[in-house]
Amino acid sequence: MFRVPADTMRSEFARILRKNGFSSEKAEKCAEIFTVNSLEGVLSHGVNRFPRFIKNTMEGFVKPDAEPTLIHRFGSVEQWNGNLGPGPLNALFATDRAAGLADENGIGIVTLANTNHWMRGGTYGWHAARKGYVLISWTNTCPNMPAWGARDPRLGNNPFVLAVPYMNDAVVLDFAMTQFSYGKMEAYRNSGEKLPFPGGFNKEDEMTNDPAEILESWRPVPIGYWKGAGLSMLLDILATVLSGGQSTHQVKTCSSEYAVSQVFIAIKAGTLKNFPSIDSSIKGIIDDLKQSVPADDNSVVRYPGENVSKIRDESIRNGIPVNKDFWEKLLKL
Amino acid sequence: MFRVPADTMRSEFARILRKNGFSSEKAEKCAEIFTVNSLEGVLSHGVNRFPRFIKNTMEGFVKPDAEPTLIHRFGSVEQWNGNLGPGPLNALFATDRAAGLADENGIGIVTLANTNHWMRGGTYGWHAARKGYVLISWTNTCPNMPAWGARDPRLGNNPFVLAVPYMNDAVVLDFAMTQFSYGKMEAYRNSGEKLPFPGGFNKEDEMTNDPAEILESWRPVPIGYWKGAGLSMLLDILATVLSGGQSTHQVKTCSSEYAVSQVFIAIKAGTLKNFPSIDSSIKGIIDDLKQSVPADDNSVVRYPGENVSKIRDESIRNGIPVNKDFWEKLLKL
Repeated sequence: MFRVPADTMRSEFARILRKNGFSSEKAEKCAEIFTVNSLEGVLSHGVNRFPRFIKNTMEGFVKPDAEPTLIHRFGSVEQWNGNLGPGPLNALFATDRAAGLADENGIGIVTLANTNHWMRGGTYGWHAARKGYVLISWTNTCPNMPAWGARDPRLGNNPFVLAVPYMNDAVVLDFAMTQFSYGKMEAYRNSGEKLPFPGGFNKEDEMTNDPAEILESWRPVPIGYWKGAGLSMLLDILATVLSGGQSTHQVKTCSSEYAVSQVFIAIKAGTLKNFPSIDSSIKGIIDDLKQSVPADDNSVVRYPGENVSKIRDESIRNGIPVNKDFWEKLLKL
Repeated sequence: MFRVPADTMRSEFARILRKNGFSSEKAEKCAEIFTVNSLEGVLSHGVNRFPRFIKNTMEGFVKPDAEPTLIHRFGSVEQWNGNLGPGPLNALFATDRAAGLADENGIGIVTLANTNHWMRGGTYGWHAARKGYVLISWTNTCPNMPAWGARDPRLGNNPFVLAVPYMNDAVVLDFAMTQFSYGKMEAYRNSGEKLPFPGGFNKEDEMTNDPAEILESWRPVPIGYWKGAGLSMLLDILATVLSGGQSTHQVKTCSSEYAVSQVFIAIKAGTLKNFPSIDSSIKGIIDDLKQSVPADDNSVVRYPGENVSKIRDESIRNGIPVNKDFWEKLLKL
């Protein structure tokens, strides 16, 4: 496997971003997020997504120099317009701003209308939690998943993030509402494998574990069927109402998804009373989980985000795994 | 089907509650919640659960006269001790208190340590949303669901509620982390039916849609498999950390579940800027959903909580459906 050192990746990203209208400061921040996403194993929203991000910038969907502007504030609630700026920069800004409101008042909520794809939502969870904040955050997306009982995609997969500080690091959950992401289904298809569980419906309306059939029908199944469909819809309603921005059905096309709506709720962990402490409460929960009886010899019971530091350490040591042709093409951007 | 008028049910509940140590005022409030849950179709956490609630009170797990006490406040964050008071009364109190904090500051969070089963979480969602607040709320539970890859139940099904005001009423999502509730699996088993989808593992470690096998193995499947297991765990961690109360593994036994932890986040909808209005934003989302192409002739695409007013109206007109023997036995309490 071809591997690229993180420093190389970061500086190449920054170079390409500068070439595409990003100021030095913004190019560095944005390059950092794409590199961290790659380092922490989420290549689909790191290096592998970077060329599309540049394409979206060139097409004018992402405005490199746009900054969020405050639309409305009441107490610890702030509604911001993302002005179609770079999604990762807007999301990082909103996370820090929510944390600032939480410093004042224990809890704060910042919403973004008119922003762009944040890439990997977990990044903002790790960022906030490592600074001592609980983060509850989500985004809506273009319509890429049918409602329960429907054929045509009208719901988003609306990634949802929950993060909490733990031992100077964090426990972070970051998941989308489809059972398998499109990226994962493509990977299974490309390697000729079936999905481990049914992941959607085929064109004959049958539940299937054949990724090619689902990629053709555009009918991935929501997690928990009607339950995940309901969660997707409420996350979209809340993102829309809280931000005053666009809902999934207004985002319309997935080929050029832009102007989505996002929510960032931060709670300052250090102001809470805990008995005995947050770390020891969470350790108790994890220790109990780890006493689980494995379902079979291959089962490993993990908590959300458990593997992230291991993957990061490994990637720092050995470089980030990238397809060689893909990387060489990227360098020409 | 035998049916009981709501007024009769309410006054019988109140009578039995008074007989079991509830003050007149608390008996009425609590009877109201059990009646509304029944009226709105959630019999499993309404009339059908009432005898167990009385049993738990007689056993001392629910303390009829206990009131929540404030442990800690910082800004718009309040941590309360539920003092093992009646779960529905504590939850209603916490919902209103979170709304009060949101009046001051746009957003407020109230947590409850040491409280009891809230019965139907959606009730607090409807309550808050009808008064003009977004509510994000959840509870942890006893361990009733295995982690992903495990055999023994160490996670809770941790019901999660999202509610938003809509047209003087609300859109409310209320779901637990198991694909099917134990109550629903029992109902399928008792009528000799299979589940419409696999709902758990049998003792041979195979995924099954036989409810009897899952009720025997105690291995219901989380919604979205590893995703719902992760969500369950994070909701438990957050409920524990934010309240300073017990986590699922500390609640231990499901036969006498008590002293759980809950979170109530309220956001005042009226202070938000929306274009054009919250109602019309939500109407747009619902209208779009309703244009879905049905998967087949039997498919109906619904939004969360859509049927509640219909069920309520029907139950107000015709009475609440109850098993006759069950009701007659209840009257002897």
